[in-house]
Amino acid sequence: MLSNIRIVLVNPYHPGNIGSVARAMKNMGLNKLYLVEPRKYPHPDAIAFSSHATDVLDHAMITDSLDEAIKGCHVVYATSARFREFSKPILTSREAAQKMLDEQENSEIAILFGRERTGLFNNELMKSQYHIYIPSVETYSSLNLAAAVQVMCYELRMTHLVKQGKTKIRQQRGNEVTIEELEGLYQHIEEAMIKIGFLNPNNPRRLMPRIRRIFTRAELDKNDLDLLRGIMRSILDQNGQE
Amino acid sequence: MLSNIRIVLVNPYHPGNIGSVARAMKNMGLNKLYLVEPRKYPHPDAIAFSSHATDVLDHAMITDSLDEAIKGCHVVYATSARFREFSKPILTSREAAQKMLDEQENSEIAILFGRERTGLFNNELMKSQYHIYIPSVETYSSLNLAAAVQVMCYELRMTHLVKQGKTKIRQQRGNEVTIEELEGLYQHIEEAMIKIGFLNPNNPRRLMPRIRRIFTRAELDKNDLDLLRGIMRSILDQNGQE
Repeated sequence: MLSNIRIVLVNPYHPGNIGSVARAMKNMGLNKLYLVEPRKYPHPDAIAFSSHATDVLDHAMITDSLDEAIKGCHVVYATSARFREFSKPILTSREAAQKMLDEQENSEIAILFGRERTGLFNNELMKSQYHIYIPSVETYSSLNLAAAVQVMCYELRMTHLVKQGKTKIRQQRGNEVTIEELEGLYQHIEEAMIKIGFLNPNNPRRLMPRIRRIFTRAELDKNDLDLLRGIMRSILDQNGQE
Repeated sequence: MLSNIRIVLVNPYHPGNIGSVARAMKNMGLNKLYLVEPRKYPHPDAIAFSSHATDVLDHAMITDSLDEAIKGCHVVYATSARFREFSKPILTSREAAQKMLDEQENSEIAILFGRERTGLFNNELMKSQYHIYIPSVETYSSLNLAAAVQVMCYELRMTHLVKQGKTKIRQQRGNEVTIEELEGLYQHIEEAMIKIGFLNPNNPRRLMPRIRRIFTRAELDKNDLDLLRGIMRSILDQNGQE
């Protein structure tokens, strides 16, 4: 899981940040770190700040160029706090995570993070297909490098858990929904859509996958599920069948 | 916005972390920092790591006890990576942010973060009504203090932006939805719910607010909106009116 996703640091200045990035990645289940021309590395600060995520550091790939670091990737995302005249689509961190996990199974993905002070240069941004911004405060928008990686890795893990229906597993609130219950809901919705003539079973197009995406993002709980099933029941119970 | 929410660090050891926390808060629009018995503070590392978020540090409240730091609060949340036999409800970082913003207008809120190595003690955890966990990898679950604050503040800002319908503002994808379009959808849903007999206009209960919550969380885009309005149209166009 998340194993096709590379975190690429371009020209990181502080070795402590490299260590903090390794820790942030490992906390969230990522392990492929690429370092493009790090200023000081290896360095004891990197190890100190990694806090036992030394395995991520040990396996980090150090390259002389960005091209080398993104070699073999199908999709490249670049993070930036500044807004230029972008020709590339801009996604929030949350949307980017969703998109990456939608395409993850078949593709190798890189996420580029720039230098602490100056970010990514234009020629580096050009090598990406998508730009990511983390919705920070406009007047104070630049996150610490490791903090930006933390946010992005956190979104990836949350999105992954949501997709697996696992965000609720550790809660004792008693209103988490199981995969089976969710599947039951989707089947119920499908029947209702057919009933109202919105879904043609002989030509379903992408209707149900699109509905699933909406409700996956909504992270339904038991109450939501009961509500939605109640609505479907009302639709199906209606008179005036075709 | 987010101004009723205090970030409370209990006994932070590294002054650099205090600075990083100030930066993480300011990036995400929070500014009330409380420090309970910091080990070394003030300290040049705090200023260096705050990266111009010195205003947050300047206004930080330093207290001798946790009780003093949470004085006047209506709700107290505590973060923890460890799982004890909790009697308190456990929320993910995302659910906690949602809950805080649901109650924010009328209440002063504190979020407690424990010591770097040992977290919060049991007697400190007892002072909270809710426990928050950030869904990290089980075998390597402990985030750096500032990273944990970053994740929580990021979730608060994202939730706030979603509530305001503002997560799409900076995107040029051309499929963002406006508040007016969303309101149009909700009205359309309400009509359909009345049509199928699920909503009684004379006794609407909490139906529409609950539906709004589901679709707020889903962060609908233009395509989703068109899809949902198509469904409502099909329901309303159906024969067999009551």
